Amino acid sequence: MSGKIITISRQFGSGGRTIGRLVAERLRIPCYDKELIEKMADESGFASDYIEEKNESARSSSRLLNALSYGNMTAIINEERIWESQCKVLFDIAGQGSCVIIGRCGDRVLKDRYDLLTVFVHAPEEKRAERIVNIYGENEISIRKRINDKDKRRRAYYQLYTDCKWGDALNYDLCFNSAAIGIEKCADVITEMYL
Amino acid sequence: MSGKIITISRQFGSGGRTIGRLVAERLRIPCYDKELIEKMADESGFASDYIEEKNESARSSSRLLNALSYGNMTAIINEERIWESQCKVLFDIAGQGSCVIIGRCGDRVLKDRYDLLTVFVHAPEEKRAERIVNIYGENEISIRKRINDKDKRRRAYYQLYTDCKWGDALNYDLCFNSAAIGIEKCADVITEMYL
Repeated sequence: MSGKIITISRQFGSGGRTIGRLVAERLRIPCYDKELIEKMADESGFASDYIEEKNESARSSSRLLNALSYGNMTAIINEERIWESQCKVLFDIAGQGSCVIIGRCGDRVLKDRYDLLTVFVHAPEEKRAERIVNIYGENEISIRKRINDKDKRRRAYYQLYTDCKWGDALNYDLCFNSAAIGIEKCADVITEMYL
Repeated sequence: MSGKIITISRQFGSGGRTIGRLVAERLRIPCYDKELIEKMADESGFASDYIEEKNESARSSSRLLNALSYGNMTAIINEERIWESQCKVLFDIAGQGSCVIIGRCGDRVLKDRYDLLTVFVHAPEEKRAERIVNIYGENEISIRKRINDKDKRRRAYYQLYTDCKWGDALNYDLCFNSAAIGIEKCADVITEMYL
């Protein structure tokens, strides 16, 4: 296995980001997560907050239907522009060599042009809520709603831009239930697969 | 991770069975695959061939709808009897201690009562066709049809009896693309997770 670029898709609160960071540290390669937003802002001219908000607002219908049914054409054009910018940034980063990319549909955008190891990380909802409450100290009741909202948006976003089903095992080389396997173990396996 | 029973669901031709056998050999625990059919035959009184044929003939509608719409009530009653026998055999085996169970919805049947490590193995269709042709010497054109038929039946069977989606990453602790990861590596990871 000589996967040079590791992409990590993840359910909110599953520890996918932590796993990605651990893998990158161990392999001494860059890890791109929030950094992607900054690069997209530089590339497109949009503000980081606006990009983040647009990335979170994907609707589950097709892009064409969106364009036809959604009144605000400027918003649609901006979303398309942000998507193009995202693809450009992903290609730029991938072209620079080995790295870990968290989210942003990296797996689908880069799949035909790069040597990838594609990973999906998930965990049962109650375990994710527990983890978020422990780490970030949030209230458990409100966190359940946030988990559901975030997952719904990530699913819709992935589906909208890639036409693939988020979380379908067939789309990834490796999928982990991080609550059953453990964050460190997930990172161990990915690191070993890369070497 | 102290998963005492390893269940392996797999796409036809993905090498899931070989992975299961390797893991069982390394851990020196039993592996149940075709052996389950024999045990079900002993338990139920049905012939092994009949059980295998019925296991392959699941329809994708609900069991109740099947019973109402399907003319041959004897066949339906037999299918239900075979399913009960399958559950009984799975519980008997699981009760005897650590083992690897290939297919037969072992993951869903045993999930609430045993300490499981649930695995799903898949691979792109062309890689599976290649593998089957190399190993079993079958014709590549007919094998594509067989792959699709088998997967369709496994999916329908799993859905019919468990109400879960076969191949949805969220249903398993670990999912592998065996063509990307390699059969031996998949077995290594599972073995390590078990220990």
